[in-house]
Amino acid sequence: MDSNQFREAAKASIEDVASYYDSLPDLKVVSSVQPGYLRPLLPSSPPLQGESYDAIRADIQSKILPGITHWQSPNFMAFFPCSASFPAMLADMYSNAFNGAHFNWICSPAVTELETVMMDWLAQALALPDCFLSTGPTRGGGVIQGTASEAILTAMVAARDKFLRSRTAHLAEDSEEKEDETWRLRSKLVALGSDMTHSSTKKAAKILGVRFGTVPVSRATGYAMTAESLANKLRDLRAKGLEPFYLTATLGTTDTCAIDDLEGIVALLKDESLNPNDALWVHLDAAYAGAALICPEHQTFNAHLAHFHTVDFNPHKWLLTNFDCSALWVRNRAWLTDALSVNPAYLRNDLSDAGLVTDYRDWQIPLGRRFRSLKLWFLMRTYGIEGLRAHVRGGIARGDLFANLVAGRTDLFEVIAGPSFALVVLRVAGGTDEEESNLLTKRVYDAISAEGEFFLTSSVLKGLYAIRVCVSGANVGEDEVRRVFDALVRCTEEVTGRKKQEAA
Amino acid sequence: MDSNQFREAAKASIEDVASYYDSLPDLKVVSSVQPGYLRPLLPSSPPLQGESYDAIRADIQSKILPGITHWQSPNFMAFFPCSASFPAMLADMYSNAFNGAHFNWICSPAVTELETVMMDWLAQALALPDCFLSTGPTRGGGVIQGTASEAILTAMVAARDKFLRSRTAHLAEDSEEKEDETWRLRSKLVALGSDMTHSSTKKAAKILGVRFGTVPVSRATGYAMTAESLANKLRDLRAKGLEPFYLTATLGTTDTCAIDDLEGIVALLKDESLNPNDALWVHLDAAYAGAALICPEHQTFNAHLAHFHTVDFNPHKWLLTNFDCSALWVRNRAWLTDALSVNPAYLRNDLSDAGLVTDYRDWQIPLGRRFRSLKLWFLMRTYGIEGLRAHVRGGIARGDLFANLVAGRTDLFEVIAGPSFALVVLRVAGGTDEEESNLLTKRVYDAISAEGEFFLTSSVLKGLYAIRVCVSGANVGEDEVRRVFDALVRCTEEVTGRKKQEAA
Repeated sequence: MDSNQFREAAKASIEDVASYYDSLPDLKVVSSVQPGYLRPLLPSSPPLQGESYDAIRADIQSKILPGITHWQSPNFMAFFPCSASFPAMLADMYSNAFNGAHFNWICSPAVTELETVMMDWLAQALALPDCFLSTGPTRGGGVIQGTASEAILTAMVAARDKFLRSRTAHLAEDSEEKEDETWRLRSKLVALGSDMTHSSTKKAAKILGVRFGTVPVSRATGYAMTAESLANKLRDLRAKGLEPFYLTATLGTTDTCAIDDLEGIVALLKDESLNPNDALWVHLDAAYAGAALICPEHQTFNAHLAHFHTVDFNPHKWLLTNFDCSALWVRNRAWLTDALSVNPAYLRNDLSDAGLVTDYRDWQIPLGRRFRSLKLWFLMRTYGIEGLRAHVRGGIARGDLFANLVAGRTDLFEVIAGPSFALVVLRVAGGTDEEESNLLTKRVYDAISAEGEFFLTSSVLKGLYAIRVCVSGANVGEDEVRRVFDALVRCTEEVTGRKKQEAA
Repeated sequence: MDSNQFREAAKASIEDVASYYDSLPDLKVVSSVQPGYLRPLLPSSPPLQGESYDAIRADIQSKILPGITHWQSPNFMAFFPCSASFPAMLADMYSNAFNGAHFNWICSPAVTELETVMMDWLAQALALPDCFLSTGPTRGGGVIQGTASEAILTAMVAARDKFLRSRTAHLAEDSEEKEDETWRLRSKLVALGSDMTHSSTKKAAKILGVRFGTVPVSRATGYAMTAESLANKLRDLRAKGLEPFYLTATLGTTDTCAIDDLEGIVALLKDESLNPNDALWVHLDAAYAGAALICPEHQTFNAHLAHFHTVDFNPHKWLLTNFDCSALWVRNRAWLTDALSVNPAYLRNDLSDAGLVTDYRDWQIPLGRRFRSLKLWFLMRTYGIEGLRAHVRGGIARGDLFANLVAGRTDLFEVIAGPSFALVVLRVAGGTDEEESNLLTKRVYDAISAEGEFFLTSSVLKGLYAIRVCVSGANVGEDEVRRVFDALVRCTEEVTGRKKQEAA
């Protein structure tokens, strides 16, 4: 395919993409194919000779589209949104054009430098403390990771090495004593999260081969981690001779968008009896809700963040940046590079050796990297920060609207959590016991899923089966919010046999 | 930006991209900006109000392009290629349109299912043993990872857990004895590579907190790991009470494209005294050279691969698939899922629980995933396997041509390695000692870099400073091969003061 064939092919594909977005309201949100649908539609081996682009384009429509669940549909209210935008897609065209592995500065200086500036822009937009700026007082800065999971693993590796360095600093370098003490400590390490912390913290601990400890939360405290519960866990662990070294605190948990007690955690960090020698690394996982910090009215927690070691949120969730783009900031970049730098001869160069340039490969697990900061640049410039605030506020307003509608039907629904960052978690009210309530709620969830108009997620919150409705998607409108509420009412009335008493 | 504005913007950007490719031969291959060039060109904070797309597009040309090193330039012969293609770029447009987090089957069945079929197609194209097919006898299969580094970390985690499970299987589940023995074993684990193995193996060991052991290689054996050297290392480690559990074997090392003694390693695996209880997991890192297996004449090693546990190569290097796309195959997929699966309620669904569908999140470190198999589908269909073979053979032929030219000037050059998979590694001949040869070679490298017409890489091979010339890039032609040779001759004649004796 030469550049003229590309011009023609790409223009046809652009038309496909634009038409797809125009058609989104009419598409069934969840794919209804059966497992294994695709293999019989494709040849059993790759073609020896090339095919025409028209044949490939046609197969996108006939073979792929039926197997797509439409995350950009106005009826997608499951999980959290993974919001696309046209400016981010345009940016990716240039990123693909300037294709390279970009593992150091000279691989394309613009790739490194735009990322540094964009992570500073984004930190400014979110009003993060100065310590997370590349130009700030603590030699911090930001890096684009693929996902919040990778950010957590990266932070946990850095936390572990910082802890081990600090706790063995008094022993002679390369001594057997230091080696032995390091291994003894490794066997005692505990990474902490609450039982509402995203599973990626547990997965990171599993990958690193360290223990994972759970800080219990309860419905009484809104499923948020309290400082008291954390303090108890720390005391328990230390009493057993274990070494808690890492904590994921969450701003906007996956199940309910709860906010852990960030102020209390900061106070606890300063308590030498609970956190001796500053042992605990705190990573703030704001994967979804961090986007809301772009609005001044949601920046109430920001002062606490300066006491945390890393902060991460995913612009690819609520902030219109096509997947993937997870924004990770660290208070001191040496913590990452100390843990992740290896410098073979073929990657060395004068500029890197002199410390004049940033080599983001030492801030992450992979070596190569894409030019993802272009997406943030295009996005922030196309929308402007005010435009992005309006987008976030729209989601919040829809969440409030939905919660108000639900509050009008206490005969049918009990709100478990929210509205919090456009998420409402509810269950069927008035079961004779938890078991019946769970059963009814599951039947309502199954019924609304079977109707197929909306895609919602279910969850189990400490034994309570619940339905999550997240209305922050970019294409969700007030109309869809009213319609999903009506559908929930209809399904619940059918499942429970209850009808609202009409005014006589 | 609405869909009509997108149509207009995208068509303009397609024109930019196509024109960029048309202009590649005229662009200086390595960016010549100075560190820090970009920040002064950008506003110090993000704009509050949105800007026009024309303003953004214009800034790509004026601010970004000068900071790009052109990996697709015909004069790019550094590192390994990271080759783009128009079909892969077109595929990414659809991938971005169907944007989602795709962490399980229902997130978009097509994303999971196309990946399974494409990894089977690719395995067939490379003639990999059946054990790596999803439909094969050992419940193996393939998964797309971001980079070879991530593939290695993933394999090493699986190897570690398989080893620990196997070595503690005789102890009661959850017993203190099992816990103690597991920690004792963890402190003894050694991951192995040669001193030519890519640094990502060492980085993975650092991340996991296991020892990294180096198997020495020598110039005498072409910088390839020999079974003898590996056997010696294994004996040494076991004599010290350590537990080698993982090995990266390489097909096409970064420095010289050497091929480790795969046949000898397979024989060693079967030797109970060296590899008791099948302790050693072997990961084949064919990141660059694996692409050559698409040609039958390079499939001579394939029978050995069935004895390895994981095989990985990067279509994003030599095989025209835009970054990133690393193809990882495993002989038994349960090894990955046993190590990486965590199943919280909000990720569970009936189909996954019933084992009817593949959840690739359990085959990798991140949770979310992009729709990358589209790139492979578009690529294999547009080129056909014969087209891809022709592309690979073109690179090999250019490598041979370059090596032949170099062989005609033994007065100036000594070939250290190659031609191997289109890579030739050379140095200046005839220095009075190694130190002088190193100095002369470095001066030649600096001179050709300063000219700026070509981008080559230098390396240090066990004390020998050398220049790597890799001519497999998709846009490199015979003409560029002759010109880079001429430039090397000119620079070397200047640096050494030697001129070829003209025939009288």
